[in-house]
Amino acid sequence: MASHTEQSAVTVLGLGPMGRALAGAFLDAGVRTTIWNRTPGKDRELVERGAVSVPSPEEAVAAGGLTVICVVNYDAVDAVLRRDAVTGALKGRTVANLSADTPDRARDTASWAAEHGIGYLDGAIMTPTPTIGTLAGVFLHSGPEQLYREHKPVLDTLGGTQTHLGEDTGRAAAYDLALLDIFWTAMAGYAHALAMARAEGITARELVPFAKGISEILPWVFEVSAEGVDSGDYTDSNNPITSAASSMSHIVHVSESHGIDASVMRAAEGLARQVIGQGHGGSGFLRVTELLNPR
Amino acid sequence: MASHTEQSAVTVLGLGPMGRALAGAFLDAGVRTTIWNRTPGKDRELVERGAVSVPSPEEAVAAGGLTVICVVNYDAVDAVLRRDAVTGALKGRTVANLSADTPDRARDTASWAAEHGIGYLDGAIMTPTPTIGTLAGVFLHSGPEQLYREHKPVLDTLGGTQTHLGEDTGRAAAYDLALLDIFWTAMAGYAHALAMARAEGITARELVPFAKGISEILPWVFEVSAEGVDSGDYTDSNNPITSAASSMSHIVHVSESHGIDASVMRAAEGLARQVIGQGHGGSGFLRVTELLNPR
Ligand SMILES: NC(=O)c1ccc[n+]([C@@H]2O[C@H](COP(=O)([O-])OP(=O)(O)OC[C@H]3O[C@@H](n4cnc5c(N)ncnc54)[C@H](OP(=O)(O)O)[C@@H]3O)[C@@H](O)[C@H]2O)c1
Ligand SMILES: NC(=O)c1ccc[n+]([C@@H]2O[C@H](COP(=O)([O-])OP(=O)(O)OC[C@H]3O[C@@H](n4cnc5c(N)ncnc54)[C@H](OP(=O)(O)O)[C@@H]3O)[C@@H](O)[C@H]2O)c1
Repeated sequence: MASHTEQSAVTVLGLGPMGRALAGAFLDAGVRTTIWNRTPGKDRELVERGAVSVPSPEEAVAAGGLTVICVVNYDAVDAVLRRDAVTGALKGRTVANLSADTPDRARDTASWAAEHGIGYLDGAIMTPTPTIGTLAGVFLHSGPEQLYREHKPVLDTLGGTQTHLGEDTGRAAAYDLALLDIFWTAMAGYAHALAMARAEGITARELVPFAKGISEILPWVFEVSAEGVDSGDYTDSNNPITSAASSMSHIVHVSESHGIDASVMRAAEGLARQVIGQGHGGSGFLRVTELLNPR
Repeated sequence: MASHTEQSAVTVLGLGPMGRALAGAFLDAGVRTTIWNRTPGKDRELVERGAVSVPSPEEAVAAGGLTVICVVNYDAVDAVLRRDAVTGALKGRTVANLSADTPDRARDTASWAAEHGIGYLDGAIMTPTPTIGTLAGVFLHSGPEQLYREHKPVLDTLGGTQTHLGEDTGRAAAYDLALLDIFWTAMAGYAHALAMARAEGITARELVPFAKGISEILPWVFEVSAEGVDSGDYTDSNNPITSAASSMSHIVHVSESHGIDASVMRAAEGLARQVIGQGHGGSGFLRVTELLNPR
């Protein structure tokens, strides 16, 4: 019995900032939404907007065909889902796990789901909470194509760019990790740049217009270097890794002269120096990829 | 005697990828351009396009009123400029130093120039070689405003966005370092992401569309966080540093399980863990700025 109402009923487990954003987007799209969170009290605004809040995850998952779980990591997912009452209630239903963790944990969760007759999709959210429910939201999914198609109409309400990466359950997590690697490493660089700037009497507001300009170079670099990276050709006649290493050592030097820890840049410079030491000083910086994972 | 020809004559010292791009932009703008490089043989294409190549830096600087030097760092600048013949030939002329180094080295070079009756501007180039001579080129300058105004017409031919940051000679280098910090740290993250992706069977070409999307979030993050960073308010109810640290430890774990060095992310995660250890687990990741440089 899959009435229209049944089809567009969804359960959201986890009401952190992202879980709340997901539930809010479902409500905005007119999807009947049941919510639960380990710690009570985070449901108020969602209930005012029409969500049904229930006291246990087993009651929550029983309310609809699709359960979206979004908690901090898969230890938390396991703590919620791998209890008999919840596992039993999920039988014949589908879980779309939008929590972040490793590809292995995703594959392990898929095996657990298969053993218990639970449909399982794994996914990753690539954009911050304000984008959820808007065209700017980016979601990655992996797992059985047929199952994805079935729940796509509801999942599509969460954001404008939805990509199914294939049947290997770990694929969304693998993309997610690589992309989070870029994001959080860049953020570590930004935090350090702000600390150095402040030591030099430059405010965040002064730096931001130029910081935006610098970060806007990245998409271009990604684009022009991709083919070379895939074929192992790291030639970059415009910007040798020796020049990068020189800039990196200035950053370490000035940072430490201000008493500011430079461990992140020290590690990055170390990789560049190893590439140079291997005799590749004329290559571009991305030859570091080959040092990290030789083919 | 400042004829039009005299005014728009420029010398370029250093013909690495960037020096060649600068000289090429001057030639395209119809500026009479004299060039020199330590190692011969890099001038051919520029000479074909109308540049005058001379065998010594002292001859080169004598050919015009403004000398632009763009070499790897200030050790190289000193090796070229701080020889009696060159210093003597520069007297009464102006140097615009577009090489990258530290604010202290910039200030030291300004003192040396003042002692020898040489006008001195310090600058930094914030965009890659293909942008030089186009609207996309971004240049920062510091030093005497009057001197900057005098040479602005020639310098403006190098790129569309030219900013004079003030009279403190070290200011352009300070901005430069902070901005290169963001850029090279992000590039280290990207190289690592590519190495991890390859280990998971994902090519650069597959990752790039999503990598571009992720990097396009950065300008937005910079913008919305600036005021809080300046006032020491790192509240980020949408994305707690505990959640970031969890993702970071997944990246370290998966990377090392593939035998891929994760020293950069290990260092970044360490900073996040220290912030959490100080009792700020509910803050946003940028609280790392305060750990690095407490106010
Ligand atoms: N925020 C973003 O911008 C963003 C963007 C992309 C992806 N994500 C991903 O989305 C997921 C959720 O992130 P978030 O921003 O909502 O914040 P979060 O701090 O990562 O997760 C908070 C949620 O996890 C729950 N939780 C933690 N440990 C638990 C346990 N042992 N048992 C049950 N529940 C547990 C919390 O419940 P309590 O309230 O009971 O502690 C809360 O619901 C994460 O994997 C994150 O990487 C977030
Ligand atoms: N390439 C870019 O995309 C880019 C972007 C922004 C800023 N920059 C900055 O521009 C500057 C120049 O960069 P680049 O890309 O042209 O390549 P580079 O490798 O940083 O510099 C090469 C130049 O430095 C010269 N040089 C090195 N040591 C020297 C010494 N002891 N004496 C005299 N000359 C010496 C080289 O001369 P030889 O040919 O004789 O070795 C060559 O002309 C750097 O400070 C860099 O950070 C570059």
